[in-house]
Amino acid sequence: MQEFDLIREYFTWSSDQSSVVLGVGDDGAICSVEPGYGLVTSIDTLIAGVHFPESTGATDIAYKALAVNLSDMAAMGALPKYFTLALTLPEMDPSWLQNFSQSLKQLSEQFGVSLIGGDTTRGSLSITISIIGWIEHSEALRRSGAKIGDGIYVSNTIGDAAFSLWQLQNNDIPDSDCFAKLNRPMPQVELGRSLRGVASACIDISDGLVQDLSHILKASQVGARVEAEQIPLTKVLTDHVTKQSDWSLVLNGGDDYELCFTVPEKNQEMLGDISKRCDVKITQIGVICESGVLEIVGAKNIGKSYQHF
Amino acid sequence: MQEFDLIREYFTWSSDQSSVVLGVGDDGAICSVEPGYGLVTSIDTLIAGVHFPESTGATDIAYKALAVNLSDMAAMGALPKYFTLALTLPEMDPSWLQNFSQSLKQLSEQFGVSLIGGDTTRGSLSITISIIGWIEHSEALRRSGAKIGDGIYVSNTIGDAAFSLWQLQNNDIPDSDCFAKLNRPMPQVELGRSLRGVASACIDISDGLVQDLSHILKASQVGARVEAEQIPLTKVLTDHVTKQSDWSLVLNGGDDYELCFTVPEKNQEMLGDISKRCDVKITQIGVICESGVLEIVGAKNIGKSYQHF
Repeated sequence: MQEFDLIREYFTWSSDQSSVVLGVGDDGAICSVEPGYGLVTSIDTLIAGVHFPESTGATDIAYKALAVNLSDMAAMGALPKYFTLALTLPEMDPSWLQNFSQSLKQLSEQFGVSLIGGDTTRGSLSITISIIGWIEHSEALRRSGAKIGDGIYVSNTIGDAAFSLWQLQNNDIPDSDCFAKLNRPMPQVELGRSLRGVASACIDISDGLVQDLSHILKASQVGARVEAEQIPLTKVLTDHVTKQSDWSLVLNGGDDYELCFTVPEKNQEMLGDISKRCDVKITQIGVICESGVLEIVGAKNIGKSYQHF
Repeated sequence: MQEFDLIREYFTWSSDQSSVVLGVGDDGAICSVEPGYGLVTSIDTLIAGVHFPESTGATDIAYKALAVNLSDMAAMGALPKYFTLALTLPEMDPSWLQNFSQSLKQLSEQFGVSLIGGDTTRGSLSITISIIGWIEHSEALRRSGAKIGDGIYVSNTIGDAAFSLWQLQNNDIPDSDCFAKLNRPMPQVELGRSLRGVASACIDISDGLVQDLSHILKASQVGARVEAEQIPLTKVLTDHVTKQSDWSLVLNGGDDYELCFTVPEKNQEMLGDISKRCDVKITQIGVICESGVLEIVGAKNIGKSYQHF
């Protein structure tokens, strides 16, 4: 089958965004940008066997490939608008493509983002999505704005995705809630939008709490003190940490796609309303301080950060 | 080495574009868009062994990965502005990365595009670039505007890249000019910009003249008659076609990244000036006609179109 037939068959659902002037099917897609907005863009690749187990189904792969990119928009406080898809496939499998495209369409509709272009190639399975969002001028959440005294917060619970992967690797039956977080992380777009003008810095937790919080500290040139016992955990994670005396999945597990952000004292009273409105648990886990290091109090067997190489 | 160290070391040269508000190093990059412009975006993947021989050096790979994306902007008449890079590498090889990043930087500076973000992963060598350009409202060159009676034109010469690949595959010493076109195609950005308001439809020749012209015909719902003898060829290609009585490399070879475009009669007198100003040869190869098919007159052994699958 020719590339353009493949694209036409599986990836040309119509967009209802009026700003999409020209979608899939030309050398490039065309969008208009409303005055008052800037662009935010990022790109993320998922590779079979690296970012998801080889056994993962097309539905979950499509979901996650878009979700991790939506999560980058969330971490910037941006409104996701468009994405392009570079899909590398070992073979043409219509039922795989059907499931992949259906799942991608579903998540894209849920978040109001339009697929506007792409490229398909033959090779080992890999999915790259490039996403474009809009941001009101000067309102983006950067990594570099944390100040001494700011509280450090995370959304929902931490470590679930890594715990699920650990269970799979140890041939345990995976806990269903944790497994859902591994395969179907919920991009915190609404939370990110609500934190504009409230948070001083923000990042999404993709590589693990320690590594991602460290990015904020480095960009902001500050240190932090985190109380391990304050990190919100589900019951299975609490049991795991207690039983194994092992904090590595919580602190360095990654793949949670929750937000980690810092908030100046004057804005902290707004977090209760934001939590309610976004239906997201928000928990303070520490405080930004002067020391240039990240101090984790009360955790043993922290493990190592995820290394891309 | 950690991903962010890798990025910092090789991919954070500063941008001199004032519209880049925030470049590499956060969850997303931020750009402003001037009033009066819309966005054009596309994405393209190159895979080792598929889009370039495994033996290709990092310098040529980087060049081509960006060039094919710049070529998409050229085909839309857009002004390339920014790009993001998703790089999948089998190993961390500092000298490879050094060559790759230097070459990427050089071409990006030549065309005034800024690298604003990226992702690095481990896996078989593959390079995906997502490019964003600006286009003046309603001035994009689409595939769908060709009208009956329009002349069909191509830039420079056709078939050189495919001939070079054919030579490599047949263990011939590759002709140096053709080899340069295979590894270092020149994106026709200036020509694309000049064709705004002049051409009625445009595409870049990546998959071969027949396949790419057919995209224009299908999108425009017209047919075409092309005179094979009018297709501009270098001397080595003319010799090859004559000797082998084989038009397949010319008609279905691909990888030329020249522009194929249609021009209404009233605008054809402008092409001389455009050719001079852009220092690009422009040759009429046929005419758009009513029949829904592409008729190639005077060519034997046409070969088959490039199939992505």
